[in-house]
This record gives sequence, structure tokens and C-alpha cells, in this order.
Amino acid sequence: MGMNRHYVHGYDMREALRLQDQASSLVELMHSDTVYSAGSVVLEAGCGTGAQTITLARNSPGALITAVDIAESSLAQAKKRIEDAGCTNVTFHVGDLYHLPFALQSFDHIFVCFVLEHLARPVEALHALKALLKTGGTITVIEGDHGSAYFYPDSAVAHRAIQCQVELQRRAGGNANIGRELYPLLMAGGFNSVNVSPRMVYVDLSKPQLVEGFTKNTFTAMIEGVRTASLAAGIIEATTFDEGIRALYRTAEVDGVFCYTFFKAVAFKQ
Amino acid sequence: MGMNRHYVHGYDMREALRLQDQASSLVELMHSDTVYSAGSVVLEAGCGTGAQTITLARNSPGALITAVDIAESSLAQAKKRIEDAGCTNVTFHVGDLYHLPFALQSFDHIFVCFVLEHLARPVEALHALKALLKTGGTITVIEGDHGSAYFYPDSAVAHRAIQCQVELQRRAGGNANIGRELYPLLMAGGFNSVNVSPRMVYVDLSKPQLVEGFTKNTFTAMIEGVRTASLAAGIIEATTFDEGIRALYRTAEVDGVFCYTFFKAVAFKQ
Repeated sequence: MGMNRHYVHGYDMREALRLQDQASSLVELMHSDTVYSAGSVVLEAGCGTGAQTITLARNSPGALITAVDIAESSLAQAKKRIEDAGCTNVTFHVGDLYHLPFALQSFDHIFVCFVLEHLARPVEALHALKALLKTGGTITVIEGDHGSAYFYPDSAVAHRAIQCQVELQRRAGGNANIGRELYPLLMAGGFNSVNVSPRMVYVDLSKPQLVEGFTKNTFTAMIEGVRTASLAAGIIEATTFDEGIRALYRTAEVDGVFCYTFFKAVAFKQ
Repeated sequence: MGMNRHYVHGYDMREALRLQDQASSLVELMHSDTVYSAGSVVLEAGCGTGAQTITLARNSPGALITAVDIAESSLAQAKKRIEDAGCTNVTFHVGDLYHLPFALQSFDHIFVCFVLEHLARPVEALHALKALLKTGGTITVIEGDHGSAYFYPDSAVAHRAIQCQVELQRRAGGNANIGRELYPLLMAGGFNSVNVSPRMVYVDLSKPQLVEGFTKNTFTAMIEGVRTASLAAGIIEATTFDEGIRALYRTAEVDGVFCYTFFKAVAFKQ
């Protein structure tokens, strides 16, 4: 689903979120303040199967969006999703984020969502994207951070199960805890006026849609999705992993609480 | 500083925050949406040395605030602080939060800030407070959560140093990770319509006042404050603790990031 051939197969945050209601409060939480003016030329770098592309296209109906991904199969799905939604302001291109086939300084804005977490050289990728951006243009980056997950009841085995995904992603060259790092990454990438705003998802039973849609069906399902890979990699015992998953589901019960934070950064090219 | 005779002496979050600028953005973040109407009768349970009392009194100048604490020496300091600030809407009483000397249903609102974390029986305390609240009245609870602290660069020894305070507070009967637990606690305390809103403090170098005022002089100073007690309790080696503290200060350097979340809950008595 990303720009990197070595990402963790199976569930990741984007795919897990995609399987939930597209009109959910999580989409609102992350994307509602990204609105590009009519006529803006916008690059979505690493669109995957278009999970975020559709929100981008709807929130900025007058913007001209170029969505790129390295995986042709993902692009085909993204294209179909955008067509099915009746959006006409997106064009699709295959391309490697480190070497995109576009003219220098050809975009007003760049949007990168759940992509840097999969890259072995995120600063290099940001430098490459900066070259495509016009002076005065913005880059928007959204990433999760698995180290931001905590919950009630607390559970050491639940943290160990989460750590399996962190470790698999690390071995694949990525970083599942990259959200907290957006400020130094964008500074190192040569951007200016970096502004990071955390988007914390706080879930208790007063928000039953989030208990279902985030705690259970997004986050815990995503961690559950790395069971086979984690056991195969010898990172954890099956019984420990399964106990950790049960402890995560336990946080979705009547007195449970679950916290996770996404980080959104906007920066300028001066 | 609290209702519990067994709290961790030395620094805690309230005292650490108190030493910072009272007009800081942290005060705003936590307290700006607590405003009681003129004539309201408000109980601040566990006022300590008045660190929050002064903000409460200023934000609700027409409310009649009764501030109680079990420690006479703290109350004396609170009284002086309120007088020095020229606030005239606060009266002070010595009292044990579990057995306060007030008539049942005598308060319109109750305010509890950085107190439950020190109590061995927080649900019992909430029940006792509920009895003092009029039907239809609100309780507001604010607590930190040390398990919500994460940072860049990440550091295992930094987490071990933080864990010293968590462990000392646990041994004293308290819970330094209580913030995430406010929803189930207030439900168990018999309150209704519990609404928890996390207040995340995100710090990078674009907010230099927070780097100084929160990362270094509040949070890290607070953890540093338990060095002697932690070594005496045999929880950690001196070299490990000191390395952890250095790693926390490292997050205040130019590319560092620090995250911490306070939880604020408002609930009703039906």
C-alpha cells in the first residue's frame, strides 16, 4: 500500500482505518482542516488504495490532485474508488516517492498520509518532495504513533502484542512510532515554520461508535493482523500474543478506555 | 499537599506546575473552560497550597468558593496566596475529603484537581463528594497520567526514571497513571453523563516556553525530585536514574519532542 516495497504486509493503520466508516469522526479529526483552494495543484505522495484520496478530493473539490503510488495494484483500487465516488479532480500516476516523474516546483501543496512510517529514509523522501514544491507551498504529513497507545485496564502483554507490529515494521525498515518525530523530520527535510498538531483519539463507552470503530475494529484488528508474521518471526509466543489481544479487547468493555494519537504536521517551503 | 497523609513527598505534578508561570498556556489548557456562574456555591476538594484555587477564583469571580485541605500548613499557604492575589471569593476549611464537615447537597459544583492520584480509595472519595453535591450539580476532576509521557528521542532509561515516581506513588497508595481512568472512576462513583476530555501537552522547539516551562522545569524537574526517595527505596540504581534524567533533558534539545496528557472530566449528579 505504500512507497516502500518492504512494508509490513497485512494490516496497517491506513488499511485498518479504510475498513471503517469513511464518514467517521476519525476522518473528520484528521482531515477536516486540510482544504486546498480552487485551482491549487496538489500532490498526494503515496496514495495507496485511495483511502485518504477520496477525503482529500471531496474537501477540496476545486483542487487538481495528482495521486501517486509505487504499486500499480493499489493505484487501480484507488482509481476505482475515486470513480465510484464521482470525484473528477484526481489523476493517478505510478511512481517512486524518491524519484517522482514531475517537474521541479510544479506543485502548490503536497499531502503525505501514513507513508513516512514505511520508509527507511524519510528525510531523503522529504527532500525529494520539497524539490517538487513551489516556493511558499505547503507540505502536510499525517502519521500514527504506536507508542502513543495506552489504555485502561493497563496490560503488559497488550503492550507486548503492540510491540510486535512495531518490531516487524522496524525490521522492514519502517518506524511505527514516527508520529512524535514529525517536527525534527520536517526540519531535517529542509522545511520551515513546521507546525505539528496532535490528534488524540480518546475512547470510552460514552462514544460507542469509537469503541467499535477504533478500539476494536481499527487498532486491535490491526495488531491482530500481525499474529502470523509475529509468530513466524519468533518475536513472541502464541499464548502471549493471544493474551495481549484479549487484553486489548478488554479495553473496549464497559469500563475500558483507549487512547491513541495521530500527528499532523504542516510546513512551508521558503 | 493533598487529602492523603501518605502522598509522595517532594515534587508532584501540582507542585511542579505551581513553580511555573501561573499565567502559562498550561493553566489555560486545563482551566479556561471551568467557569462557574455568579452566586454558585463551589467546593474545591483538596486545594493543597492553592495552586489551582487562584485560577478557579479568578475565572469565576462571582462564585463562592470553599477550598478544603487536610493539611493546615498547605491551607495557610493557599490562604496567603489568595489574599496576595486580591481574591475575596474563597473561604478555607481544614477537612478530610472522605469526611468533610459540610451539609449534604450543599454545593452547586465540586472541583478536584491533582487529588485522586494520591488517594487509596478514589471511588469512596467520589461517593463522599457526591453526597455534598446538589442534584443537577457538576463535579470536575483533573488528573495527569505519567503513562501518557512519550518523547523523541525515545529512551528506555528515561521511562525507567519516570517509573520510579509511578512506583513510589503506588507504594504510598496512589496512582500516577490515574488520568486515563477518570471515566470508569466517575461512573463507579455514581455520577452521570461523564465527559472526559484529554488535554495533551505537545512540546517541540517551536514552543520554547513549553520546552522550558513544561519539559524541563515541570515534568523532568518533578521526576528528578524523586531521586533520593527512589534510591532509598532501592527501586533503581543511581547511575540508571541519572542517565534517565539526562535522556529526559535530551528531549528538550533542538530536535526533541515531549508529549504528556492531562485528563479533565466533568460529570453530573442526577
